[in-house]
Amino acid sequence: MKRREFLKKAAVTTAAAGAALSFGAPAVHAKKRYLWKMVTTWPPHFPVFGESAEFIAKWVEKMSDGRLKIQVYGGGELVPPLQAFDAVSGGMVEMGHACAYYWAGKAPATQFFGAVPFGMNSEQMTSWILAGDGHKLWKELYANFNLIPFLVGTCGVQMGGWFNKEINSISDVKGLKMRIPGLGGKVIAKAGGTAVLSAGGEIYTNLERGVIDATEWVGPYHDYKMGFYKVAKYYYYPGWHEPGTAIEMFVNKKAYEKLPKDLQQIIAYAAQSSAAWMLAEFEAKNNYYLQKLINEHNVKLKKFPADVLKAFRKYTKEVLAEITAKDPMSKKVHENYSAFQKKVVEWDKISEFAYMEINYL
Amino acid sequence: MKRREFLKKAAVTTAAAGAALSFGAPAVHAKKRYLWKMVTTWPPHFPVFGESAEFIAKWVEKMSDGRLKIQVYGGGELVPPLQAFDAVSGGMVEMGHACAYYWAGKAPATQFFGAVPFGMNSEQMTSWILAGDGHKLWKELYANFNLIPFLVGTCGVQMGGWFNKEINSISDVKGLKMRIPGLGGKVIAKAGGTAVLSAGGEIYTNLERGVIDATEWVGPYHDYKMGFYKVAKYYYYPGWHEPGTAIEMFVNKKAYEKLPKDLQQIIAYAAQSSAAWMLAEFEAKNNYYLQKLINEHNVKLKKFPADVLKAFRKYTKEVLAEITAKDPMSKKVHENYSAFQKKVVEWDKISEFAYMEINYL
Repeated sequence: MKRREFLKKAAVTTAAAGAALSFGAPAVHAKKRYLWKMVTTWPPHFPVFGESAEFIAKWVEKMSDGRLKIQVYGGGELVPPLQAFDAVSGGMVEMGHACAYYWAGKAPATQFFGAVPFGMNSEQMTSWILAGDGHKLWKELYANFNLIPFLVGTCGVQMGGWFNKEINSISDVKGLKMRIPGLGGKVIAKAGGTAVLSAGGEIYTNLERGVIDATEWVGPYHDYKMGFYKVAKYYYYPGWHEPGTAIEMFVNKKAYEKLPKDLQQIIAYAAQSSAAWMLAEFEAKNNYYLQKLINEHNVKLKKFPADVLKAFRKYTKEVLAEITAKDPMSKKVHENYSAFQKKVVEWDKISEFAYMEINYL
Repeated sequence: MKRREFLKKAAVTTAAAGAALSFGAPAVHAKKRYLWKMVTTWPPHFPVFGESAEFIAKWVEKMSDGRLKIQVYGGGELVPPLQAFDAVSGGMVEMGHACAYYWAGKAPATQFFGAVPFGMNSEQMTSWILAGDGHKLWKELYANFNLIPFLVGTCGVQMGGWFNKEINSISDVKGLKMRIPGLGGKVIAKAGGTAVLSAGGEIYTNLERGVIDATEWVGPYHDYKMGFYKVAKYYYYPGWHEPGTAIEMFVNKKAYEKLPKDLQQIIAYAAQSSAAWMLAEFEAKNNYYLQKLINEHNVKLKKFPADVLKAFRKYTKEVLAEITAKDPMSKKVHENYSAFQKKVVEWDKISEFAYMEINYL
């Protein structure tokens, strides 16, 4: 405690001295150094998602002139992937990097900060979080867990997934065994399918052996690297279940509040910088791998039929109604999310969509 | 010079001492303070664009603990808006905030870093700049002017503009006097119209008095504030001429290189953070003002007919061919830009567009 008091006094003295200094004169600061840990839910060096965690650590170190070093751990390197939330919440480590829907079991409302079937796309999610009420609500939710959340990016509209069975009508989903987590999985279950949970490393083998008939993953870049094209017949689009998945970083609230204000800000804007980069990277990489899949591996693209999507949408409404009926925070967040979506779509119809329509059709 | 040498030595000593310190022990730094100026092309406190400049200044100051303070000037407060480029290039001030197409007279290739008719939308432009070759080419171009460019945001698909004359076919553009700068203006001229240049403050009166028949500006948020709905009959979409305008910050290269590395990084990531925020803010605000225009002021939305857009597209190709034939750097940038656009569009067709299609039609 004594050293902290000394540092506080030193800081005050420095600030007072700084005010009196003419610009250009050196200011002497006594600054503490920090070594933090960031656990992630991603395999080590996972493309884009894992790179975002590593970039943030690098940017923070550079911006802070080495005063805050962050050691990034892949899922399982320090704690199992799905224990990242608890590890940061409990203060074992200072930071985590994940997707909010992994924590649905802790608080169902987390799902609205990850992905919602037929919900907002990347641009809209980012807008809700950075310029609407999204971040405020997210912080309110995570405060219950001693965490502060930050948006670190979105990944664009995902692909619908890899199928070994054609989906020509909603009745084809009956009996379908599909690896699909979260709200999308609940929708598949309502349509008479079975939502299977497989860890990333098991999906390929399960698909190859027919343990599952289908799987969703991310998009062409990540899917290519998983090699699904070798064991699945059809590649469906669009990813109705994850139209603009948000990726998060969360920081232990007490650890964050103990940091000097400049390091707090450096963390916040490293995260926000990642938000600009992540979607940019997905846009740049996905087409390259899409073309490889089509041209080098004869992958057949298929669009979900309109009536299948209509049924998925109906089941999504039921799933959301069930969640919001049971959980007041989910209700509050969902209302805000939906109101924002409804409005922003009206603008996007005559801007982004109208522009794509004249160019893409 | 002597003081600089002393500071260099001091920095080396500090770094060496830092390496030997255990984390948690205070490190003593002797750090110079900087007071910089940023000139902008925007009216003082201009929504979104001007706010971005102010946010960047605020974020840099907070992240640097006050070591780098940036005083932001609206256009005309220190130098006229369109002298921002020269003021920073010549070293009179350290930073500028603008749109690259304002500098077409200095180097035609700047236009590809602003907006291209029928070019990339915001998501794609950001991707080209942050994850493709865009930033590299932009830096190469600006190095000729002793400047380093940074992307600070994009503004989404703009509106097509305010018209007092219906545009039912391309022949209606003949004789049309429209306030429209840049490449879009060249297209209007090719279609037989007159591209008029008016400063922001004169447009309203010119439209009211019939000096011009039409004007483009930005989108519902900015257009509402200009009051154009009071003096124009039709509000056209989509903004074919500016589908995803990029906004820039540029820094005097020598001034930047003299900064300590941590402050250089702080500037770079403050800019990148603005890139995430700007589009988010446009998305959040534009619909609110669009609805006000429609519901409170009876504004009539009109979509450009397909054959008008087809003609605009043909003229755009001619305009671009003329520019790239004359200027090798424009040719180099345009080829890279177009190749990126062609590819990313293939992915967007089955992701962003396909998703919007199932939701918006």
